[in-house]
This record gives sequence, C-alpha cells and structure tokens, in this order.
Amino acid sequence: MTVRVQGDPGRAPSAAEAARTIAAATNAATLATLTAEGDPWASLVAFGLLGGTPVLCVSNLAEHGRNLAGDPRASMSIVAANSDSDPLAGGRVTLAGRVGHPTAAERNPTRQAYLAAVPAARSYLDFKDFTLWLLKVQRVRWVGGYGRMDSVTAEEYNAASPDVVALGSARAVAHLNADHADALAAMARVFGGYPDSESAVCTGIDRYGLDLRVRTRRGETRARVAFPAPLDSADQLRSATADLARVAQGG
Amino acid sequence: MTVRVQGDPGRAPSAAEAARTIAAATNAATLATLTAEGDPWASLVAFGLLGGTPVLCVSNLAEHGRNLAGDPRASMSIVAANSDSDPLAGGRVTLAGRVGHPTAAERNPTRQAYLAAVPAARSYLDFKDFTLWLLKVQRVRWVGGYGRMDSVTAEEYNAASPDVVALGSARAVAHLNADHADALAAMARVFGGYPDSESAVCTGIDRYGLDLRVRTRRGETRARVAFPAPLDSADQLRSATADLARVAQGG
Repeated sequence: MTVRVQGDPGRAPSAAEAARTIAAATNAATLATLTAEGDPWASLVAFGLLGGTPVLCVSNLAEHGRNLAGDPRASMSIVAANSDSDPLAGGRVTLAGRVGHPTAAERNPTRQAYLAAVPAARSYLDFKDFTLWLLKVQRVRWVGGYGRMDSVTAEEYNAASPDVVALGSARAVAHLNADHADALAAMARVFGGYPDSESAVCTGIDRYGLDLRVRTRRGETRARVAFPAPLDSADQLRSATADLARVAQGG
Repeated sequence: MTVRVQGDPGRAPSAAEAARTIAAATNAATLATLTAEGDPWASLVAFGLLGGTPVLCVSNLAEHGRNLAGDPRASMSIVAANSDSDPLAGGRVTLAGRVGHPTAAERNPTRQAYLAAVPAARSYLDFKDFTLWLLKVQRVRWVGGYGRMDSVTAEEYNAASPDVVALGSARAVAHLNADHADALAAMARVFGGYPDSESAVCTGIDRYGLDLRVRTRRGETRARVAFPAPLDSADQLRSATADLARVAQGG
C-alpha cells in the first residue's frame, strides 16, 4: 500500500537542472575577472538571466568594469541560500565563459532581464558609463554540497530548465519544519530508508522529492523521499507532501 | 541640551575598519583564482582569519585547489549580510594578493584559525589532499553601498581592527526596528538632520553611531546618528541607543 506513493528515491535534479535552479533563485553573484596584469579579481555583482545566460550591468569606472572591457574572460559563482552554519554544505555553481555585448536584437530583452532582477537599476542602467554584458557560458561546475558535484557542458546547461518547484519551496520547507516534525520523521522512517529515525528536518524540496536531515540513535544522516511522480508546478507541492505525510503516518 | 548627546555625525568607520569588520563577520567568501589557461575562476570557499589574513583550506582535487597550486595570485570577495533586495546596496570587500603556505611557526595558529571559523573541517583538515593557505593581502577595495567606496592599502588593512560593536549589533538592530519605531523616527528628526522624518528604519549600527533609512514627505533618504563618543564594546550598545532615544523623544 505505502510503496505506491513512493517514486524512485534515486531520482533528483540533474546537475544542469540544479545549476539553472541556483542561478534562477537569486540576483547576486561574485564575478571573477582579470586585471590588466592578469591577476584574478573577485567582486560582487547583481545579475539577471536571459534564458540561462547571465546579464551584467557594470560601471565602466569600477574595477570589474575596466577588467571586462580589457579581457572578456569571466566566471561567476552563484551560491544557493543555505541555513547550515557550514557554508560548504550548501549548493553553488560556477558559470565560466566570456562576456560580450548584446546584439541589436538582444539589446531590449537583455535590458528587461536585468531590470526584472534588479529594479533599482532603472535609475542608472542607461547612463553612458554603465555597460550591459552577456556572459556567454562555456563551462559549468555545480557543487551540491559535500561529495555532490559534477561538470556540465554549456549545451546541457542551456537546455535545462530551472526547477520551479524548488524555487517556490521556501515557505513549504519552513512550514514543514515548524509544524509537521512528526510527519517528517514518519517519512524518514517509511520512505527514507531509516526505520529508526527519531526526528527529521527538511533541508530542501525539488520537483522530484524532499531532502531530509535525519537523526537516529546511530547518528545523523541524510535521506531522500521521492514524490510518486515529478511535480510540474509549485501549486502541487502542498497536496504532494500532504499525501506522503498521510501515508507515512498510516493515514 | 540635546546637542550634548550627539557626537560628530560625519564620523564613521574607516574603509580599513569596515573591511576588517566585513571579513570578521562571516566564514564564507568567493575566491577568484587562475586556471592553467589564465582564465579567472570564481568559487565558494569557507575561510578563517589569522589577524586580518584569510586562511583557506582547499582540496587539491578541486579546481580552485589546482589553480592555487599552479599560480598563487588570488582575490576574495566577502559580502556583508544585507536585508535589502538590491544586493548592491550592501557592503562588501575584495582582498587581493597571493597565497602562501604557513611557516612552521604559523602552522598551528593557522590551523586553529580555520577550525574556529569552520568547525566541520575537523573531519578533513589534516587529510593529505587538503592544503592550508594564507592569503597574504596586498590590496583591498571596500564598497559600502552605492557611492561609498575606497581603496585600502595592506598596511592600513592589517593595522585596523574589526568593529566589535557592529559585529554584535544584529539583535539590537532587529529590536529597534521591531519595537522602537517611534524612537528611531525621533532620532532622525532630532539628530539625523531630517526634522520632517515620518518614519525611520535602522539599517546598521557601528561603534560610532546608527545608519537610518528615513522616510519624509519629500521621499526616502539616509541619515546618520552619532553616539556622543565611540563605543568600545557591544555591551555599551543598549544604554547608548537608549540615551539617544530618550533625548530625541524629549525625555
């Protein structure tokens, strides 16, 4: 009976999908550029996305602006929100490539993509000393946390979609942890592979299932609970997690 | 009467002090290194501090580990916590220099500095495929937000101290905004230079005073309210802000 609501627990977002999701979840990143001496320069940037392509708008007077004008090679590190005190436990992605100017046809969508992500830029985007750049991604490195990492080609990255369920899951994660600790522990026991789970905290949800941090008498571990089938929208999250909870709790 | 509790409102942390404070406030940064081809590579790192010198512990198998072994030039961007939806409104600092191995005498303090910042590293710090690096800072660029930025020499950076009042102020900022909105508006009117302030939000506290975001009928602006004298410890924060509030409210 219970097995019917459990999907394939090995199924999780691909590295390309995870990379696209991390990029779509924020408007802040750190850019690495090259100084005139060829030294690496790390600096905070705001960014938008045109598809999966990062859009930057930087002052020509700023160090990174001068660097990009002098050498188009650049990479960007984007970090997923992470409530763990160990920053290396969370997800992040590096997008590496070269910046270029948008073509005439790309100009307006590029501008709109930046403004959608950084509304405050309305007051300076069109100043002459600011330049809009597209970072044409050539290589992607995704790290999901300790021991979870993969390289992604530009083709895979561009073909993947951000996970809209993961992007819309923050409130559901907080709600499960605040109000449904019993249900999470039951899911870990029945579906997560840890029948001796004493408690469980939800650390993330994606369209394939839930990530749990599980406490047993043997110690702390991580478990995965899969939805019966991947979700297509964040609207399906409430009923899908309620179904898992109900069956796990013998309802 | 009221002027006596107001210090010099132009007095604020120096760029070097602000840079040291941003670095001391977190254990996560983005590192920029050079690939074998000389391309810039941005990646998340955890770090500790030995004085103001960042301590890194990276896997030799990771891309940034191979990069540092191949070329010691590196820089790190460290971003201050920022509740504004515009990431560029917040503070950040870039520390640029070269990595080196700790000397025999530095080895133990370096190790302890990293473990103090990243306790989880206890399980891998001494593995042979991890290397401890010190980033010897040669150049510092601090940005406090829009229009607030400065360059800092390595000497200035190393000689400055982190602001312990700012580092311990998060709870006080939250408390003022949650429970003392009237006092903040009064401070903006009496001490902040905006007698027509309708409301004010505290966006930060340092040892010299408070930063406020002020709403007037003319629009939104920023104001600075100074303590009568710089504070020496976070313990003094409660009475110093209470004094400012009392006088601003005519008490």
